[in-house]
Amino acid sequence: MTFAQTVRIDLAYKGTHFRGFAENPGVRTVGGELRSALEQILGETVELTVAGRTDAGVHATAQVVSFRTDSSRLNCERLVTALNSICSPDIRVHAVTAVTDDFNARFSATERMYHYAILNAPQADPLRADLEWHIPDPLNLDAMNQAGSLFLGEHDFTSFCRRPKGQPESSMIRRIRSAKWVPDTHERMHFEISANAFCHQMVRSLTGFCVAVGSGKWDAQTFEAVLKAKDRSAAPPIAPPHGLVLKQVTYGKVDQ
Amino acid sequence: MTFAQTVRIDLAYKGTHFRGFAENPGVRTVGGELRSALEQILGETVELTVAGRTDAGVHATAQVVSFRTDSSRLNCERLVTALNSICSPDIRVHAVTAVTDDFNARFSATERMYHYAILNAPQADPLRADLEWHIPDPLNLDAMNQAGSLFLGEHDFTSFCRRPKGQPESSMIRRIRSAKWVPDTHERMHFEISANAFCHQMVRSLTGFCVAVGSGKWDAQTFEAVLKAKDRSAAPPIAPPHGLVLKQVTYGKVDQ
Repeated sequence: MTFAQTVRIDLAYKGTHFRGFAENPGVRTVGGELRSALEQILGETVELTVAGRTDAGVHATAQVVSFRTDSSRLNCERLVTALNSICSPDIRVHAVTAVTDDFNARFSATERMYHYAILNAPQADPLRADLEWHIPDPLNLDAMNQAGSLFLGEHDFTSFCRRPKGQPESSMIRRIRSAKWVPDTHERMHFEISANAFCHQMVRSLTGFCVAVGSGKWDAQTFEAVLKAKDRSAAPPIAPPHGLVLKQVTYGKVDQ
Repeated sequence: MTFAQTVRIDLAYKGTHFRGFAENPGVRTVGGELRSALEQILGETVELTVAGRTDAGVHATAQVVSFRTDSSRLNCERLVTALNSICSPDIRVHAVTAVTDDFNARFSATERMYHYAILNAPQADPLRADLEWHIPDPLNLDAMNQAGSLFLGEHDFTSFCRRPKGQPESSMIRRIRSAKWVPDTHERMHFEISANAFCHQMVRSLTGFCVAVGSGKWDAQTFEAVLKAKDRSAAPPIAPPHGLVLKQVTYGKVDQ
């Protein structure tokens, strides 16, 4: 009888020095580094499934990955230590859990939550230059929240997404569950947005829309017209990657 | 008549990718980068004086530098923009000010304040790995504050300092004005310490003492004995550089 086990990994990473999560030959990726460490430890080839495929420069404090292992060497606690000894400090594994075979980090996820951080001050902060978008001109938080409230519910977000190559017919319909701008201390704010799932670059595009509204360049009410255009060029520029953090992935029932 | 002007620069920097402030041939330093940018813009050689000579990996949100210029091209506002266009994002110049000739960033300073940041949680945070010292074992904040309170006043800090080469007789007497541990959110805390001046590696050594006390390895009351030893090897290990930030330099009268 062959041993087989589905495994869940909870991890955080700083995206600055990775070309995103998804593996790509010849470049450093989170998925590539994690898979390589797993294969080295377990002595077998593994295939990772991920809850949120983050882009280059995007961070995660609570990413979830799953894979199947045939290795009888699996010891969850030791795997945490072994992975961290290989992947630190840019990647930090929080937990390794043996889960039932119906668990899939991507398809079992019922909600993703992201934060987008902005420093709205005259001067950038070099200590956080790779963690927040610096916008020197004043932003109107109320207007941004008005824009965010329009995102709620189910929409076809074609105008706010980068369509994956070779998938001309894939659906861009997503359900936004919450979207709010929260003021932080020291002239900072962050956007907290959750949905069943997001299309590629969707959070950055919606953040870009809010910032266009908050800076007075766009009117929040243009949201409907942009949606209807079903054309990326109808939307304002997307926000840069480094302010974005995957904060939470939910499995199972979601509080409404 | 020759034009001559003393100039003050207020700046912030992330120390991670610098080998400290002080210039050192063949390595990247904050002072070297700033001087080179100034010379390029002003078309003359300049010599920098700095309020706090930070070590490799140490950050500053409010460093102060002064220099003398003979250049008649000096325009403070344009110099801010020109310096930032060369030195961003690791260095951020906040202000350039023409000051009176009696101003010297180092010798006119009456107080320096540093923060030392600690994450006291089981898991490190990769997003802030170069901004805080991760200590997984629980720390006793009250005990650390008890240790900090013993630092107050004037002492000979020989046991807590790295003596500069070639200065066997230099005084290590400094006056600590405040020293307190402040709890932050998310299992974080920081040490806020101010003095008329600090010797080399003194804040990191005093932080190391507090952590030794907070983890239960040392007793706060050993502070007097360590002071009296006048020997670095009598003190606990110093804290790593990356949790340290120069937060404020005061000129003129200090509130007691």
